[in-house]
Amino acid sequence: MPHPDVVLGIGDDAALLAASENETVLTVDLLTEGVDFLLEQVDPVLIGRKALAVNLSDLAAMAAVPTAILIAVTLSKTDRKTAVGALSPLELGERLFDGIRTLAGQYDVAIIGGDTNTWDGGLVLSITAIGRTTEHGVTRRNGAKPGDRIFVTGPLGGSILQHQFTFEPRIREALFLNSHYDIHAAMDISDGLSLDLSRLVCESGCGAILWEVTIPVADDARRMNDALTPLEHALYDGEDFELLFTVPPQTAETLLREQPLDNPLYEIGEITAAKNVPIRILTQDGVLREQKPKGFVH
Amino acid sequence: MPHPDVVLGIGDDAALLAASENETVLTVDLLTEGVDFLLEQVDPVLIGRKALAVNLSDLAAMAAVPTAILIAVTLSKTDRKTAVGALSPLELGERLFDGIRTLAGQYDVAIIGGDTNTWDGGLVLSITAIGRTTEHGVTRRNGAKPGDRIFVTGPLGGSILQHQFTFEPRIREALFLNSHYDIHAAMDISDGLSLDLSRLVCESGCGAILWEVTIPVADDARRMNDALTPLEHALYDGEDFELLFTVPPQTAETLLREQPLDNPLYEIGEITAAKNVPIRILTQDGVLREQKPKGFVH
Repeated sequence: MPHPDVVLGIGDDAALLAASENETVLTVDLLTEGVDFLLEQVDPVLIGRKALAVNLSDLAAMAAVPTAILIAVTLSKTDRKTAVGALSPLELGERLFDGIRTLAGQYDVAIIGGDTNTWDGGLVLSITAIGRTTEHGVTRRNGAKPGDRIFVTGPLGGSILQHQFTFEPRIREALFLNSHYDIHAAMDISDGLSLDLSRLVCESGCGAILWEVTIPVADDARRMNDALTPLEHALYDGEDFELLFTVPPQTAETLLREQPLDNPLYEIGEITAAKNVPIRILTQDGVLREQKPKGFVH
Repeated sequence: MPHPDVVLGIGDDAALLAASENETVLTVDLLTEGVDFLLEQVDPVLIGRKALAVNLSDLAAMAAVPTAILIAVTLSKTDRKTAVGALSPLELGERLFDGIRTLAGQYDVAIIGGDTNTWDGGLVLSITAIGRTTEHGVTRRNGAKPGDRIFVTGPLGGSILQHQFTFEPRIREALFLNSHYDIHAAMDISDGLSLDLSRLVCESGCGAILWEVTIPVADDARRMNDALTPLEHALYDGEDFELLFTVPPQTAETLLREQPLDNPLYEIGEITAAKNVPIRILTQDGVLREQKPKGFVH
């Protein structure tokens, strides 16, 4: 079915989107073999899905409605061993595209352009996503105010086990929250709660205190079974792709009472006036300590 | 200086472009090491320039005004030998960016987003370009009509020697032609005159006859000194990035009389009613023969 925003899709030198009274929101993410995925371990359908999902997560962070994408991919010239057996460049490209197309369909996103190359190197997949703002405007990183409460849309940590490939971008949640509540600041957690919250408060010119006991730790963070505690996984692991947002205290009360989403919202701390200092964490022992902005740096 | 279309640039989860009464034009191109350039032979400044120039050429093909770009790049983790000596990933990235930024400045294009990764593989550089339509609309591939005359904006062939890295995207020419003349169809020549003209007539449901004696052959096509004739280079070489367009006969007369651009326009053939047949070429001996749609296929 043709997308109402798409005047001209694939087939000419460029694509055309209709004029709109709303602003256009744009983001790009690139996935590289060996860094973002291992071809031998992950079905290419999930790699394609992830390439789109991380972009949709960025649009969700802005509370934008996704409309269209452009795909740039470079495939190896030769057959490759993958998690689903040896695949020719064409077969690999088709499986990647399957994963992109399925998720695009679920979010009513049109595929309006692309560039496919082959070379002697590994797989690189880059998607540019385009969205529209709504009448409620965008949610930015720089709007947090002292006294705001900090929320996340889901449990954190251990996404490397599975969640990084299967997460739902929080588009619906972001649009609903932005249209019904007073969201001061928002971003998606791609590099870990600790690091991303540091960025949010830095942009907002504030500080933050996390409440250790309320940070939701994902089951997979407990399954990691390595040198880090589950809480440390929740703080430092990347690719949760949950929304991190702040609201004034009254809105926080309302959100906790109403719990308006299908998934629970978690209140995990508060914004403080302290500028240019590390965020802090209130431990379950009642101690306030510095929380280094460690995380997953691409 | 802030770009009037850019509401929000780099720094948040996504960028924002202002609402506009015009349509948004979008295209993506990806350059890969070893296919589109050799790092040992080309200054990375020129590689960055080319990555943007090929995208601007696509916008020119649509007669769109370029406004902004997003850059996705993946660099090798280790130092690389380049045409300007060994460069660290950071140094290489900076030189690429220099080339992009300089050309972007010349065309008033804002850099509004990006994603930079490092990995064990080679250099991949993908740019998504965004433009706006003007009140004169876009020029598409599918508008050629039997009787139209076929034009190109410059000499063709041999671009591998230099032109592929130094060409000016035909933005100004396209906007001027589209605002002053009745352009029926247009595209840019990226894969060679023969192949790209075949695509244009295919989209338009027409045929075409090229006039051998009027096809402008670039000096570099004569310098190639290989098994192909200079004319064959003009017909088959890729990456000329000249505009290929068609106009009705009266407009053709006007264009040839006025020669309104800084560079000469060349009338190289005519559109015919023949559908689904190879384009033909009228040789200088007066023979009409089939012209296979050979060219540079990425």
